[in-house]
Amino acid sequence: MYDLIIIGGGPAGITAGIYAARQKLKTLVIAKSFGGQVAKKAVEIENYPGFQKIPGMDLAKKFEDHLRSQEIDIEKEETGSIKKTAKGFTITTLTKKKFESTAVILASGSDPRPLEVPGEKKLLGKGVSYCSVCDGPMFRDKTVSIIGGGNSAFETALFLSNYVTKIYIMEYGKEVKAEQASQDLVNKSGKVEIITQADLKEIKGDKLVKSIVYQDLTTKQDKELPVEAVFVEIGYQPATSFVKDLVEFNDRDEIVVEPETCSTKTPGLYAAGDLNVGKYKQIVTACGEGAKAALASYEYIKKQE
Amino acid sequence: MYDLIIIGGGPAGITAGIYAARQKLKTLVIAKSFGGQVAKKAVEIENYPGFQKIPGMDLAKKFEDHLRSQEIDIEKEETGSIKKTAKGFTITTLTKKKFESTAVILASGSDPRPLEVPGEKKLLGKGVSYCSVCDGPMFRDKTVSIIGGGNSAFETALFLSNYVTKIYIMEYGKEVKAEQASQDLVNKSGKVEIITQADLKEIKGDKLVKSIVYQDLTTKQDKELPVEAVFVEIGYQPATSFVKDLVEFNDRDEIVVEPETCSTKTPGLYAAGDLNVGKYKQIVTACGEGAKAALASYEYIKKQE
Repeated sequence: MYDLIIIGGGPAGITAGIYAARQKLKTLVIAKSFGGQVAKKAVEIENYPGFQKIPGMDLAKKFEDHLRSQEIDIEKEETGSIKKTAKGFTITTLTKKKFESTAVILASGSDPRPLEVPGEKKLLGKGVSYCSVCDGPMFRDKTVSIIGGGNSAFETALFLSNYVTKIYIMEYGKEVKAEQASQDLVNKSGKVEIITQADLKEIKGDKLVKSIVYQDLTTKQDKELPVEAVFVEIGYQPATSFVKDLVEFNDRDEIVVEPETCSTKTPGLYAAGDLNVGKYKQIVTACGEGAKAALASYEYIKKQE
Repeated sequence: MYDLIIIGGGPAGITAGIYAARQKLKTLVIAKSFGGQVAKKAVEIENYPGFQKIPGMDLAKKFEDHLRSQEIDIEKEETGSIKKTAKGFTITTLTKKKFESTAVILASGSDPRPLEVPGEKKLLGKGVSYCSVCDGPMFRDKTVSIIGGGNSAFETALFLSNYVTKIYIMEYGKEVKAEQASQDLVNKSGKVEIITQADLKEIKGDKLVKSIVYQDLTTKQDKELPVEAVFVEIGYQPATSFVKDLVEFNDRDEIVVEPETCSTKTPGLYAAGDLNVGKYKQIVTACGEGAKAALASYEYIKKQE
């Protein structure tokens, strides 16, 4: 029986773990990997206070090392379900391991939002990618596409421009939404063509991606564009499939919390970081929420004793 | 005319400054010093994610350097007043400089709470101190007192035990409130005597502190204890003397905010960090709030244009 189980190994989960350990809570962190989106960042991180410029992988490593230096248990597992019991919570992993605790902090972050078009699932890992840092270098001297026109799409373009010959940025709306500074940098590379009002319809290919089909929303005509990779950057969705009745969701499937303590509608259950309704999803805000959730869960656990 | 003025140079103000600069806001930071309480921490910091163990001064320096690497203006001044105008806000410093902006983030943190006993003001800097890191080393081989029995009092004791011969910890209540781990460490030093139910009445001395007078609450008798320093560690109060009608306060003089955006009752005016009603006052929570306030003020400023 643990005092606290933390689900997730991103900035929120790691900070919660550090704080819980320092409060001498018997703590388990369940995570399939550490660093969350920090580890997958296509550009160097410049907005986490204390590090002027640091590759995401390096910051993720520092976070993980910090967590591992604490007296806590770690299970590299994926959470399958979470149930409320008389004494607290029972968590079952996808490999059917069971763990019990008095309180739980959900900090499993969010996953890339899929396009949900034909060909996407079939060609995943064969040209379709949700992680440019992981997969980008494989497409040296190729023509690739990025779906989406926000900051992460432009960060991805900037990163890919180091490798590929040509990049199409496919934006559904009339204008891309990335910061002007990002757009300027991307334009400088001379490798990027932005196609707006493009509604992606299909990813074609057999063993590997060969082309994308999109509808030009101005003419309503379908067009086909030969590319060898499709980087999907249309946002994120909360990774909360394993919690159901225990929490309330808003219309973006984000978990409703009381922002000061990150508490959910179930006593003893907290949600910190990208998976909750918090408006601003930043590394340092996730860390702040992790600390708040750990300190609030400490107070909750002490009251149960 | 600035887009944004940030008042305060602690973790909240520094993070707000970094975020504002990255949003290309024309930003001014007004602060008398940088690092806030981080710079004055008597023990090494072990709970700011990414740094397993770092002296407060060093982390404060990293924060300040990070801020100074941004395109922002800095005024090393103390804020005297803030007024709402038709276009935004006018801030006047104690040296009568005036600055204007569309939005303002209050991040001036909190100040040590004074004892308000006779002798305290007169002997400030002559043995009375609110900063053990600043003043502690001057009392090598002396007998000193710490007023307060919480975590910061015990952290101060731990730090001072490197220098002084004898430490009295004076606690008003029946028991000290510091974490058990801190108490154990302090007891190990063998230099500390804890006096509970002690109500401090006076600090005596002419040019330098000579003794403290306290009432023993069990016997109601006054007692005098010869000490050469008095370190005041009875908590903090929000540093908000310069804002009056523009914000609401709770009964601890903390500024009421909407926690998601750190907005106050005055549109365009935000409050991040220790000076607001936030329950958990940590370095990383202050940073998180600074980021939220900067992103919220960015949205506000864009709407005014």
